[in-house]
Amino acid sequence: MLGCGFGGLFAVRALAGKPVRVTVVDRTNHHLFQPLLYQVATAGLTAPAVAAPIRHILADQKNATVIYGNAECVDLARRAVVLDGGDEIAYDRLIVATGAANNYFGNDAWEAYAPSLKTLEDAYEIRRRVLLAFEHAERETDPAGRASLLTFVVIGGGATGVELAGSFAEIARHTLHGEFRRFDPRNARVVLVEGGERVLPGYPPALSERARLQLERLGVTVWLGKTVTGIDAEGVQLGPDRLAANTVIWAAGVAASPLGASLGVPIDRAGRVIVGEDLAIDGHPEVTVIGDLAALPWHTPPVPGIAPAAKQMGTFVAKNLVLSLRNEKTKKFRYKDVGMLATIGRNSAVAVLGKLHMSGYPAWLLWLLAHIYFLIGFRNRIVVLIDWAIAYWTFDRNARIVIQGRKEP
Amino acid sequence: MLGCGFGGLFAVRALAGKPVRVTVVDRTNHHLFQPLLYQVATAGLTAPAVAAPIRHILADQKNATVIYGNAECVDLARRAVVLDGGDEIAYDRLIVATGAANNYFGNDAWEAYAPSLKTLEDAYEIRRRVLLAFEHAERETDPAGRASLLTFVVIGGGATGVELAGSFAEIARHTLHGEFRRFDPRNARVVLVEGGERVLPGYPPALSERARLQLERLGVTVWLGKTVTGIDAEGVQLGPDRLAANTVIWAAGVAASPLGASLGVPIDRAGRVIVGEDLAIDGHPEVTVIGDLAALPWHTPPVPGIAPAAKQMGTFVAKNLVLSLRNEKTKKFRYKDVGMLATIGRNSAVAVLGKLHMSGYPAWLLWLLAHIYFLIGFRNRIVVLIDWAIAYWTFDRNARIVIQGRKEP
Repeated sequence: MLGCGFGGLFAVRALAGKPVRVTVVDRTNHHLFQPLLYQVATAGLTAPAVAAPIRHILADQKNATVIYGNAECVDLARRAVVLDGGDEIAYDRLIVATGAANNYFGNDAWEAYAPSLKTLEDAYEIRRRVLLAFEHAERETDPAGRASLLTFVVIGGGATGVELAGSFAEIARHTLHGEFRRFDPRNARVVLVEGGERVLPGYPPALSERARLQLERLGVTVWLGKTVTGIDAEGVQLGPDRLAANTVIWAAGVAASPLGASLGVPIDRAGRVIVGEDLAIDGHPEVTVIGDLAALPWHTPPVPGIAPAAKQMGTFVAKNLVLSLRNEKTKKFRYKDVGMLATIGRNSAVAVLGKLHMSGYPAWLLWLLAHIYFLIGFRNRIVVLIDWAIAYWTFDRNARIVIQGRKEP
Repeated sequence: MLGCGFGGLFAVRALAGKPVRVTVVDRTNHHLFQPLLYQVATAGLTAPAVAAPIRHILADQKNATVIYGNAECVDLARRAVVLDGGDEIAYDRLIVATGAANNYFGNDAWEAYAPSLKTLEDAYEIRRRVLLAFEHAERETDPAGRASLLTFVVIGGGATGVELAGSFAEIARHTLHGEFRRFDPRNARVVLVEGGERVLPGYPPALSERARLQLERLGVTVWLGKTVTGIDAEGVQLGPDRLAANTVIWAAGVAASPLGASLGVPIDRAGRVIVGEDLAIDGHPEVTVIGDLAALPWHTPPVPGIAPAAKQMGTFVAKNLVLSLRNEKTKKFRYKDVGMLATIGRNSAVAVLGKLHMSGYPAWLLWLLAHIYFLIGFRNRIVVLIDWAIAYWTFDRNARIVIQGRKEP
């Protein structure tokens, strides 16, 4: 089992008590509750509230061994995974669930100026940049310099971009209110740039429009149909337009983890591995690929790249594995639609549940309940609930601590 | 006001509502509750539980401006503080409260192998090293290599060393129990190395002995009278003895912040600035030095380098400043003894309250109540209480998340 995100975790859990030995390899020590990661980036939650040590989650699953390491490649012929440092792990069956990475569409130089949000490290970096921009603005005497420090640009109008932009606006409008002497943080400018004609392109158009209105009400400037042509230390170039901004966040593209391409089997344009109806790769029924790394071109409607899809695939391959051990007939994967939810800010969200479309406060309540319910681990749920309750009443954000990166010796 | 630790914070708070304008300069964005920092390093608490944004604490104090920056030197003649980047802040009165730094007694090369604990960054680094040592031990196949990975050495038997060693033993014995498949974390070895003849040298000898016994009961090996002569990537050299250890933590020495020496006035061997009875430096009544940076050689008994002393000095200089503005006679500083507390682990601590000496469970309860009472900010207290209550009943530690340092672009 490579990767312990939603797909990997649900697969290994579905194998508990089965007559198999499972080795879980992950390059972090924690399972991350990705849907709430943006709250770590925006100082609403602490890292432990959205992450739990993998070996703690699996402590009681005696057939599972957890290995902290980075899978560098898979040798399909020899049936072995090569880890960093050269260690090898032989396998009879392999589940690849290493997920997605960021995608700058060939402009990797932009990453230094516009970090994106995939890992806890990313979240800390974004938090650091946003909070320090306000700190530096208190020292800045040049009005243009201060305006640039107080301009926050989020590129990409998908769920992550919308959540980040909404949170930045709330930080400026509410959280930091009254804490600066030389400027009013409410004058900070948050710009959400989307190349397409609407935000949340995966949602029905009417909900995209509602989301845009809710963002504008929070104080976010939404720019649609604008393509980024350059990012540097001073700001963003949008074709002929220039936006001076000290803080730019990239939420525009997701590519598959590079491990997918290393398998040497067909991949799609985003680098995702094309799998069959049993989620195995062509010619290797012992190797399945699940979650954001898997492409299912034969599945209509398309399977969305969200947590419920990864969980369903994880459980599916585990069950199929047990069936095949018993020499029973394996099944074909079908995604069961559970809807989609995106939050925008305090009391604002949009939701699609089958034919039911919601927005505003009811959608936000639904989002709140769903996320607390699905958070891994009893303790995290309690902590997140308390943090949110306090934050809701006080408008404060508790995790506003800047930790500078430490240089490695 | 330079530095917003206990001394700085109590000084600026005591100036609230007074006819002065206060500029607070700190190189972090947070006030740190230093006595609980070791719990961040040992994964018991999250950073926001022991730290609060300075400008949030001072939001309602309208005469205070908070500047995020590093004071590089003080120009006594021109009455100006020079910040990183060259900005200058002119002052009429200056309070220097930049505290202590680590002291490797001339062996600065040891720092790479044996980090010490002063800042939140340090705490994250220690947490990372300790947790990753266990992770790597699960991958290690060589018995000697695994033994070295599972040996944790704490150098220095003062309060910080005792707290860290006790917590490491608890992590190995309780927190990680049952989570590894290839070794038993209870076999990890925690060694506390102290150069003197007893731990907690600032305490009465009988309490030092009790502390040693409590440490041994937790599973810590206490080595007294051992001087460290070398530290490298493979372990520690103690004269003729060699201790192979992957993780070494330095808790043996504290020196004053380098800003003290830059003042160009007399300092003591530890680099602390010698101040008069009004805590001002010689010839410059407008400049006072407080907290761990101040040396008070004329004060008997000596003032301990603990939080209550810094707080008392902070309040003292603020009151004297107000008196001098009114042209009234200023006072002389006297430290009011409030006792000393050191915790060792679950249900174990030692305490000195005047003539009352306590150890074991009663001392631990006292420590618990005192630390919760003095934690800055209502929310932090609640969060710490909940974290501790859950940790106490479950033996778990919630903050076991490893976050790798991010390279700066």
